[in-house]
Amino acid sequence: MPPRFQGPTGTRDLYPLDLARRRWIEAKWRTVALRHGFDEVDGPAFEHTELYTVKSGPGIVSEIFGVFSGKDEAGVKSMGDALLRGEHAAAPWALRPEFTPTLARLYAARAAQLPKPTKWFWQQHCYRAEKPQRGRLREFMQWNCDVIGGEPATTPADGPADGQAVSTSLVAYDAEVIAACVGLLEACGLTPAQARVQINDRRAVSAAVAACGGTGNEQAALQALDARSKLPPERYRAQVQALGIDPDALDGALDAIASAQSPHAAHLRALLGALRQCGLGDWCAIQPRIARGLAYYTGMVFEVIAEGERAVAGGGRYDNLIETFGGPPTPACGFGMGDVVLSLLLQDKGLMPADAQIARELGLRPDVYVISNGDPASDAAVPGLLAALRRAGLHARRSYKGTKNIGKLLKEASDAGARSAAIVESGSEATVKDLDTGAQWPQRVELSALPERLRLMA
Amino acid sequence: MPPRFQGPTGTRDLYPLDLARRRWIEAKWRTVALRHGFDEVDGPAFEHTELYTVKSGPGIVSEIFGVFSGKDEAGVKSMGDALLRGEHAAAPWALRPEFTPTLARLYAARAAQLPKPTKWFWQQHCYRAEKPQRGRLREFMQWNCDVIGGEPATTPADGPADGQAVSTSLVAYDAEVIAACVGLLEACGLTPAQARVQINDRRAVSAAVAACGGTGNEQAALQALDARSKLPPERYRAQVQALGIDPDALDGALDAIASAQSPHAAHLRALLGALRQCGLGDWCAIQPRIARGLAYYTGMVFEVIAEGERAVAGGGRYDNLIETFGGPPTPACGFGMGDVVLSLLLQDKGLMPADAQIARELGLRPDVYVISNGDPASDAAVPGLLAALRRAGLHARRSYKGTKNIGKLLKEASDAGARSAAIVESGSEATVKDLDTGAQWPQRVELSALPERLRLMA
Repeated sequence: MPPRFQGPTGTRDLYPLDLARRRWIEAKWRTVALRHGFDEVDGPAFEHTELYTVKSGPGIVSEIFGVFSGKDEAGVKSMGDALLRGEHAAAPWALRPEFTPTLARLYAARAAQLPKPTKWFWQQHCYRAEKPQRGRLREFMQWNCDVIGGEPATTPADGPADGQAVSTSLVAYDAEVIAACVGLLEACGLTPAQARVQINDRRAVSAAVAACGGTGNEQAALQALDARSKLPPERYRAQVQALGIDPDALDGALDAIASAQSPHAAHLRALLGALRQCGLGDWCAIQPRIARGLAYYTGMVFEVIAEGERAVAGGGRYDNLIETFGGPPTPACGFGMGDVVLSLLLQDKGLMPADAQIARELGLRPDVYVISNGDPASDAAVPGLLAALRRAGLHARRSYKGTKNIGKLLKEASDAGARSAAIVESGSEATVKDLDTGAQWPQRVELSALPERLRLMA
Repeated sequence: MPPRFQGPTGTRDLYPLDLARRRWIEAKWRTVALRHGFDEVDGPAFEHTELYTVKSGPGIVSEIFGVFSGKDEAGVKSMGDALLRGEHAAAPWALRPEFTPTLARLYAARAAQLPKPTKWFWQQHCYRAEKPQRGRLREFMQWNCDVIGGEPATTPADGPADGQAVSTSLVAYDAEVIAACVGLLEACGLTPAQARVQINDRRAVSAAVAACGGTGNEQAALQALDARSKLPPERYRAQVQALGIDPDALDGALDAIASAQSPHAAHLRALLGALRQCGLGDWCAIQPRIARGLAYYTGMVFEVIAEGERAVAGGGRYDNLIETFGGPPTPACGFGMGDVVLSLLLQDKGLMPADAQIARELGLRPDVYVISNGDPASDAAVPGLLAALRRAGLHARRSYKGTKNIGKLLKEASDAGARSAAIVESGSEATVKDLDTGAQWPQRVELSALPERLRLMA
């Protein structure tokens, strides 16, 4: 079989300018997460398959990539048998389709020693065997922020005026999670007119599904609601009707929830109050038709919806997952944001900086570009000078071109974004030019003194 | 089946302090690569299996993790059949065991537009289904630096005094690759007494194997030589003898190469000269028993060997690989360094900084820790103040403890590494304490003015 010269469908080859844009997004994610007091964690890119089959739900399970090692003879045979029986989740491991199950596993393993609450962020790749399309790839990066911990609502006395019990710590932690998400949107220059946080409660959706006769089909109804904005209206209606649910009655039941006298409606109202207190009132609203597809959500759910794009981010409360993975009963709330949809949104809105600006922000500019004046002695001095500059901590580059035209070489240095150019003369001295101002240093510098002189300018 | 609560064997769960150490290594890698003029690229974490089976050799192929999607019904059936026939590389994709094949694929796809030479670095995860042991995991990070391009040696007139043709550009690019590798060792505080670069030429090893009757078993002999330092001496001898090669004769033939009148010996001597010119003479030596295991090396090979550890880094020249993946004939040279062995080495030598130092270097210190003085009005002001501080770009944290003991809360702020603490008084003002000096600001600050005041200090 001839080798294939392209990467797998739905993955990306990132050349330097492409990768710099992704690194810029990663830097924004990291900066915002740290600002909001989250600590970074990481886990394996593949996990035991059961970690995902136990709680994430059929939407995720149908999209996992199986992973196996040919070294396990017995395992390979039994996997081969299972595959031939049609068991597609037969591999011992799966590429991580999302991070939350790993996070719950990590928390459960050290729950007793971890701070209360624990605030973690994570940013790495995820993998889903979806059909690739605009905004969806099979390999993408995701940013997660989670707050783990909090006290359940205990007495109605803690609640608001309508007498429904609300947990002040869970409201505060939901608000912290949403504030970090909005913090990223703000840091990228987005406005509430371009992206809104739409908040709901999974319990309200479940109650509406049950009230419309969907008991027993709840997970399928959640999937249909979650996919609604991506489906033609008739297709959505047909899916819901196939579950024995009248789509109009379901909308009515969903829309009635926001004003209901229920603990979750009271929680949502208290959450909106907390978000307003943080100056985020313009960004957030209750949207009773938000469902989210993952099976493990237990309470508040939210999505960031931008005009013309699918959800830029989504998350919610998953108060049972840590217990499922062997930890103590622990409430938790978090969200994920992918790099693909965010990039498209920033490009659409003209908010992705130009390449030169990204290079500046990421510290990619060369400090100095070394050019020989063309003397054999100068040519010979270049490698040693570069080594000395780099040992002094400077980002130093050279031209590899054959030309001895200093003007062309200076243009090459300038195109590379270098702050300065050092033209080696007669093998022992350099003329230095500041490429930002165009000014030439008044005197030549001995090559041995150049690293220290340039370091003082950097 | 009950869910398993541990990560897969040979993978790591990285809690915040663990991950900060890895991020510190990643930052060193990135800084050194940029300093040396390399641009960062990235590719998929899984590739078509053929990308590795075509050229990497049996050592890598026996260790690849297969990847497949359950969505491809026909593919799953045929893979099941192939697995039952014992074909362990039957999966359509493989988790990347190394980056070089992807790099060659990326270069081949855009060879005409890319600079000559092209200098790329890469730092991401790799996956090998090895038996986990000290210094070897199934998931690890790797840093690669590669210089792609250069002119072959054409006329003896270009060569040194012994009359053997040497390509000055290939010598220079080999030296650049090795200089970047040593640059990392220096940046971590290592000395030539702790880690040495041992350089050889794959052609010399092949010639020695052939001279000792190993023709036809060359790849197996290379594998045995590469594994030699990890095997008991009798085991190595038995492996080589099984290939019809006398181990003592092989050592003699290898050791004779360094002084030989051959083009590759001349290349190695010129390379050592270029490395001395860059001030790297103390770090580097010719070691005629270095072979490297990968099948695609065509010329110079090298390893960084540290006392008591397996190779910290290794690489070499692979002048045919880009052509194999559909590009023009293009020489190339690079190395890989893993995070696991490097971490162990730095820990052994006392060169891994303390956690607080890592937090400083990575910019993880909170700018301000917000504490309420315990008044209900102050408690209520905390969330809004945090939001304002974060919106101003400050890394702001709070205590979640129930205690109102200011001394304990200040200790918590200090333990978190915060630069300052802001104690909210009467809901409208804050007393600010510089936690580095212990000094308190002479006057209280209005909460609304605090973000700007702290920002000027940051």
